[in-house]
Amino acid sequence: MSKPHNDTFLRALLRQPTEHTPIWLMRQAGRYLPEYCETRRRAGSFMELCKSPRLACEVTLQPLARYELDAAILFSDILTVPDAMGLGLYFVEGEGPKFERPLREEWEIRDLAAPDPYGPLRYVMDAVSEIRRALDNSVPLIGFSGSPFTLACYMIEGGASDDFRRVKTMLYDRPDLLHHVLAVNARAVADYLNAQIECGAQAVMIFDTWGGALSHSTYREFSLAYMARIVAELKREHDGQRVPSIVFTKGGGQWLEEIAAIGCDAVGLDWTVDIAAARARVGNKVALQGNFDPMALFASPENIAAEAKRIVDAYGPGSGHVFNLGHGISQFTPPDHVAALVNAVHEHSRTLRTHAA
Amino acid sequence: MSKPHNDTFLRALLRQPTEHTPIWLMRQAGRYLPEYCETRRRAGSFMELCKSPRLACEVTLQPLARYELDAAILFSDILTVPDAMGLGLYFVEGEGPKFERPLREEWEIRDLAAPDPYGPLRYVMDAVSEIRRALDNSVPLIGFSGSPFTLACYMIEGGASDDFRRVKTMLYDRPDLLHHVLAVNARAVADYLNAQIECGAQAVMIFDTWGGALSHSTYREFSLAYMARIVAELKREHDGQRVPSIVFTKGGGQWLEEIAAIGCDAVGLDWTVDIAAARARVGNKVALQGNFDPMALFASPENIAAEAKRIVDAYGPGSGHVFNLGHGISQFTPPDHVAALVNAVHEHSRTLRTHAA
Repeated sequence: MSKPHNDTFLRALLRQPTEHTPIWLMRQAGRYLPEYCETRRRAGSFMELCKSPRLACEVTLQPLARYELDAAILFSDILTVPDAMGLGLYFVEGEGPKFERPLREEWEIRDLAAPDPYGPLRYVMDAVSEIRRALDNSVPLIGFSGSPFTLACYMIEGGASDDFRRVKTMLYDRPDLLHHVLAVNARAVADYLNAQIECGAQAVMIFDTWGGALSHSTYREFSLAYMARIVAELKREHDGQRVPSIVFTKGGGQWLEEIAAIGCDAVGLDWTVDIAAARARVGNKVALQGNFDPMALFASPENIAAEAKRIVDAYGPGSGHVFNLGHGISQFTPPDHVAALVNAVHEHSRTLRTHAA
Repeated sequence: MSKPHNDTFLRALLRQPTEHTPIWLMRQAGRYLPEYCETRRRAGSFMELCKSPRLACEVTLQPLARYELDAAILFSDILTVPDAMGLGLYFVEGEGPKFERPLREEWEIRDLAAPDPYGPLRYVMDAVSEIRRALDNSVPLIGFSGSPFTLACYMIEGGASDDFRRVKTMLYDRPDLLHHVLAVNARAVADYLNAQIECGAQAVMIFDTWGGALSHSTYREFSLAYMARIVAELKREHDGQRVPSIVFTKGGGQWLEEIAAIGCDAVGLDWTVDIAAARARVGNKVALQGNFDPMALFASPENIAAEAKRIVDAYGPGSGHVFNLGHGISQFTPPDHVAALVNAVHEHSRTLRTHAA
């Protein structure tokens, strides 16, 4: 048995009662923390940091030492899977991730294969095991992956894109080829997340960063359908505990009902969504995670607390809300503003529950 | 009397019967056209092109010479208004618009004033008059402006931004200051659009390019409320003709009912929205404009036609649809693909009406 001492996060994902609204932050181990920058300097590069289980563990724990966060998330990159497929992930300062060998030719696409998570992705599994040991059942550990479509965007564009021209040209002209990439990606992500669960991840999240760039009908066919395939294959239990899953499509606010219907336990919300309306739309089907605007962390601590309370109040009474940002935390965020947010969410949600009791 | 020979566009905006679905394209006079690049080269710079009524007229007409478009749109920039307020608009190749004197200090904000549209914006009014003469009542001319919030983003950030950190920090910490900027902008945009109408614009459109970056509640308060103020002040008629208004918030698919309620005649849709669902949501309140993914123009002409038909069919029978892209056309678009789109929309919508009759 390995139930964490603070299992608020896991209970909220399963819509079981909790004493407070749990909170963690996307990209909580990141450049806004001076200690993270220090570890990254020692590692040499971002990829070396990702590929060292010891250093990945070190940075995963850093935000937990500063703030009363209710979950840890594996420190890694969303593009480890295509890197393990042989595309050659690298980073250029200020330009984001790039691939040395993006998918350009049909034969390259036909040659794609799902990597063994215990082969070229072994370093991720080692990091998961090491972080679980270091956490010592204090809070749960979240494993994660990019979504099949989001991975395909980078694999086909070769890096970040502001218009997704290559991947969308393929979508409209050669949907068969894109479906092949997505099927391989879905197989790879399911294997990758299940291996993370075997190594100790207590919840898993699929980041669909770019699904929101699709039209309504192509979103269903090219992004959601493949996330549904993964969710159906995920291990639901490990080590005697339920392992909840979270699906987050940034910019997917119009499609919440459809996301909630694929069998995941929770749906991520960006900040554009009204969380009260979202809860009414998904009913009791899933928990909701979000939806604080990361830019509101640049406001004063008083205004941060006011905005946090507004969201906690908008979700309303009852369990099923995991507080989070609507996107990764900005590298320019003042670290003490994060403390103001975490404390406001905990204090205000505890007060509400006391009054309701 | 100045009713255009082809007034399909105006009738569709007013939900009156039309023989076909009218189409025009956001940024239809742009860099994908070699003749536009040639005129721009002659002008010297983008701003010189904007500020020359003769050259602005020339590029406005270029796409109409190539394609059977149902409307012309004034060639100008969305940031002419803050430029006329004294902020000093300039362009850096590959970086988009910038201001020499962005709003940084409270006194700069308190000093802002709505410019006289016949003063520093005279060149825009002259362009409108010249284009109307050159069009000779062939198709209607659309006037436009950026929305108060979208203008404020550039005025406060100083240029394009990927996180809107400055404007959002002001929103959360000094909402009074941001409201002041927005009130001045709303006054300025209402005056500017009314002057365009006086000079001959037969429909007007408000581009809210960045409203979709806001949360649900801040969108209402900081973007939609000011567009509502403008719509309430717009001249409804000129020269004996109704002058319809279109409001377009990119990324605003979640808020269509609220946009439709501010009194505009039509609501713009980006490509993420399901136009069938959108029509059901707004009912008979407004016409809809959109919602073809500009990236689908990179598909083959056959696949472009198929996607165009899908959207025309999804809107369904009856008038009230103006076909358009969900965002400005990409500079890399092959010009002959645009012809395939325009023809497919016209032919397919004519066939549908024949069958329905």
